[in-house]
Amino acid sequence: MIVDFDSITSASNPLIKQLRSLERKKGRNETGLFLAECSSCVEQALARDWQIYTLIVSKTSADRDFVQDLAKRARDKGARVVSVPDRLAGSSARKDNPQAVIAAIKHSDLELSALNPGAPGLWIGLYECRDPGNLGTILRTADCAGAAGVILLENCCDPFSVEAVRASMGSLFDVALARTDFATFNAWRQTAGLNMVAASVNGESAPTEIDFTKPSLLLMGNEQAGLPAEIEAACDQLCLIPMRGGADSLNLAQATAIMLYEGWRQRGFVS
Amino acid sequence: MIVDFDSITSASNPLIKQLRSLERKKGRNETGLFLAECSSCVEQALARDWQIYTLIVSKTSADRDFVQDLAKRARDKGARVVSVPDRLAGSSARKDNPQAVIAAIKHSDLELSALNPGAPGLWIGLYECRDPGNLGTILRTADCAGAAGVILLENCCDPFSVEAVRASMGSLFDVALARTDFATFNAWRQTAGLNMVAASVNGESAPTEIDFTKPSLLLMGNEQAGLPAEIEAACDQLCLIPMRGGADSLNLAQATAIMLYEGWRQRGFVS
Repeated sequence: MIVDFDSITSASNPLIKQLRSLERKKGRNETGLFLAECSSCVEQALARDWQIYTLIVSKTSADRDFVQDLAKRARDKGARVVSVPDRLAGSSARKDNPQAVIAAIKHSDLELSALNPGAPGLWIGLYECRDPGNLGTILRTADCAGAAGVILLENCCDPFSVEAVRASMGSLFDVALARTDFATFNAWRQTAGLNMVAASVNGESAPTEIDFTKPSLLLMGNEQAGLPAEIEAACDQLCLIPMRGGADSLNLAQATAIMLYEGWRQRGFVS
Repeated sequence: MIVDFDSITSASNPLIKQLRSLERKKGRNETGLFLAECSSCVEQALARDWQIYTLIVSKTSADRDFVQDLAKRARDKGARVVSVPDRLAGSSARKDNPQAVIAAIKHSDLELSALNPGAPGLWIGLYECRDPGNLGTILRTADCAGAAGVILLENCCDPFSVEAVRASMGSLFDVALARTDFATFNAWRQTAGLNMVAASVNGESAPTEIDFTKPSLLLMGNEQAGLPAEIEAACDQLCLIPMRGGADSLNLAQATAIMLYEGWRQRGFVS
C-alpha cells in the first residue's frame, strides 16, 4: 500500500518554518520538539515509542519501501506525514545533503526520578559536557556497552540538538537519560549505593585497578576544564587513564569509551 | 623582546588567498602545504621540527607572550611571520572564531618506508577511513596510548585537512604516519612479523582473547562498510568488540580506542 502524503512546496510554509526553528535551542524549548534527521533515528524513535509529531519525507524518497514503511508506522501512531521537495528536506546547514526522512519528535523530560538506579550496567555522569558531537557519541557507545544510563550534570549541551542526535545514531532513543544538578545527582547515587569513580588527571589508580564489578558510576568532566576540585572531592575514587609521557589528553568521548569498556570487561561483558 | 611582524590587511592579498586555498585538497596538493589553526598545534609542529612556511598572527593576539614566543621560534626556523586583522585570522568556516595563530606547514611525505616496523607500541591500520574528525581523533588517541604509528590504507580522507588537524589536537605532528595501498602494506607487516588483527562484525574473539603482547597491528575498516572480505581474509585474526544485543555499532574512533587500550592494557601500559 502506498501512503498518501500531504504535500508542502514552499519554504515559507509555517510547518517548514517551525521545523527550521528546531535547529536552535530556543525553538526546541518553545515547542518541546526536536529533529531527528536520518531513517535509522526515526526507526529507533518508533521502536522505542517516542512521540513523532511530524514526519517529513523528501519527494524523491517518498516511494521507497523503507520510507513507506516508516511513514505508515508513524502515521498509525499519530504523526502527520508530509512530503516536501528535496531542497526543503535537510537542515539549513546541510542543504547539499537532503535526508529521506526528518522527524519532529517530542522531548523526553530527562527527569532523574524516571531512572532506575538498580538497572544493570554502569552509569555515566557527564559534568558540563559542551560538545554535542561528544555527547551523541557517548550515548552511542553507552548503548553499545549496555550502560545503565547517562546523566547530564549542570550546564551540559543539549542532547536534543541536531548534532547530538546525529552523532548518537539513534541511541538517544534507547539510552536512559536524565539531566540534573550535581547535589541532587550525588544524593541519588549515594542512596543507590553507586561507587562514583571520576576520570581525572589527579587520579592515582588506572582503570584496571578500580573494582567496576561494584554498582558503579563513571563521572567524566568538561572537555577543557575537567572536574572542579569540590566535585572530585565528592567522588569515591579518582582514576587516571594511562597516557604515555608527553601526550596531551584524550578526547572526552574517547576517554569515556576506554573507561566504560574497561568496566564492562571486568563484568565479563555481561551487564 | 617584541617580534616585529609583517602586516597584511586585505583579504585579496595573494598570501591570504594562498592560505585560504589550503582549506581545500587541491590547494594543499598544489603547494605541499597545510594549515594548523591553533597554538597548541603550532607548538607541537615547532617542537617536532615540522617546517613552518608562514605563521599568521591575529592583531589582537600579537602582543601576548605565548604568541610572541611562538612567532620568535617560528621565525628562527625560517617562517615568515605576518600579522593580520582578526577578521582574516580563521578559516572561512570559522569566521566567528578567529585564531591567535595559524600556520602553513609543509606536508610530510607519508612514506611507508620511513616507518620503523620494530618501533615499540601497537600499529594501527585504517582502511578507507573517510571522516577527518575520526582520523584526527584516532591520531590523538594513538599518541596518548604510545602507538607505534598509523598507516592510512587505500582511499582514506586527508590527514592534512583542517578538520583532521584540528581533531588531532597537535598529535598529527607527533605520531608516525604513512599512506599506502593494501598490498604494499600487507607485505610490509608480514616482513616485520606483525600479527594483523582486524576489528570486524565477523570476528569471534573478544579483544581480551587476542594476544596483543605479540608485535601487533590493529586493522580498522571504513565507517559504513567495514572491511571487504578479501582484506579480512588477509588478516591473522578477526576480533569482535563486545556489544549488547540490539545495539547498532560503535563510532570508528571509539572502536579504535577500545581496541588500542585493551592491547595496551595487556602490555601493562608500557609499550
